[in-house]
Amino acid sequence: MALPMKEMFRAASASIRAAVSAAREGRAILLHDGEGRENEVDIVFSAERCTPESIAFMRSSGGGLICAAIGNEVASAIGLPFMHDLLASAAERYPALSGIVEGSTPYGGRPAFSISLNHRDSYTGVNDRERSATVMAIGRVARLVSEGGDAASEFTSLLKAPGHVPLLIEAHGSLSERRGHTELSIAVMRMAGLPPASVVCEMLDSRTHRSLSVEDAAMLASDAGLPLLEGSELP
Amino acid sequence: MALPMKEMFRAASASIRAAVSAAREGRAILLHDGEGRENEVDIVFSAERCTPESIAFMRSSGGGLICAAIGNEVASAIGLPFMHDLLASAAERYPALSGIVEGSTPYGGRPAFSISLNHRDSYTGVNDRERSATVMAIGRVARLVSEGGDAASEFTSLLKAPGHVPLLIEAHGSLSERRGHTELSIAVMRMAGLPPASVVCEMLDSRTHRSLSVEDAAMLASDAGLPLLEGSELP
Repeated sequence: MALPMKEMFRAASASIRAAVSAAREGRAILLHDGEGRENEVDIVFSAERCTPESIAFMRSSGGGLICAAIGNEVASAIGLPFMHDLLASAAERYPALSGIVEGSTPYGGRPAFSISLNHRDSYTGVNDRERSATVMAIGRVARLVSEGGDAASEFTSLLKAPGHVPLLIEAHGSLSERRGHTELSIAVMRMAGLPPASVVCEMLDSRTHRSLSVEDAAMLASDAGLPLLEGSELP
Repeated sequence: MALPMKEMFRAASASIRAAVSAAREGRAILLHDGEGRENEVDIVFSAERCTPESIAFMRSSGGGLICAAIGNEVASAIGLPFMHDLLASAAERYPALSGIVEGSTPYGGRPAFSISLNHRDSYTGVNDRERSATVMAIGRVARLVSEGGDAASEFTSLLKAPGHVPLLIEAHGSLSERRGHTELSIAVMRMAGLPPASVVCEMLDSRTHRSLSVEDAAMLASDAGLPLLEGSELP
């Protein structure tokens, strides 16, 4: 797989190359899914490189939900379900759940949510240091899956649930099935040769109380020297 | 129950009275659980009064996880489980969960997390307007429980899961069992004669990357004219 990835990188647009470099260096990427979808810009980092400063940047400049996303092969290796499947199966025991589980979204496709996690060493789990530790542990588990290690044991020994970092699982068919921030950010990590794990946070607008517009995100990207990537640019 | 509550209010400290007034008027309360516990200050609003501006204030001045808390009688009326019980029961079907479910916390007591919700009219569910609508719907369901209405139907018709607002459930024994922000904020709503539903968000410190200290929260409370309540003051 090394050669096709390198070739893909060489053929990639300047903004994909900038995003891949940022991911490798632990810097933020701004990622727009597209106008026909959520039409949201997320701040994205490699999960392995998510420092306390990364968490602070996402909550102060993004303001959405800080979630960790993993490749579908990571979820399969551990045996992690989507939350809507988990809730549907738990509805036999808790009938209240049967009426509220939605396995689809208004913008198409299924919700990416799985369970929420804390690092085992967390105290409350919410501050920048603790959410960083949780996300980095998820990155470590994803790396073990890529390298053929015992990811399932590592997952159990590093993480616990419930916690303060919602986990998102890439669709089984990756970008060919779903082009959300989960799949797009994981695609960037794969192109960068990093483990398939990212941390994402939606950018919100305190003036309109809606998502931050792509135009405003582009201004912030330009001011802060951050790459802004259009989802449609990814193959 | 009306008379004892009124008497409790008359006997309450000035800071409890200020917090109760703020809750009734839809203003923010800063709530410190205590040094022997999480030692965190949360921003708290009545769920019924949670506007898009309230969400924006919590994410910009708090920075933690924006969660809705409900009284245990609301969870019972609907039949909602704690997340750790739900995950433990789902572990039969998804064995990966069995090793990671933790029904206790480092600061004592059980985690308050239940499922995460979106209002049914949400598009993505994360922006200020949509999280406000989700929290207000939870407030409406809590009001129906207090007034003897059909809360379970309303819950199903207004809300769906998974979503972007984690729900917290008050411990069965309320403050006598657990004195977390969930129980403390619900106690304030009860004293205010409001439905037992609140929205809470931890205050974080971007300088230390830890929780905001009580001293810094007190300065912010003083500058912004917000009540700061010590959990130990609640009976």
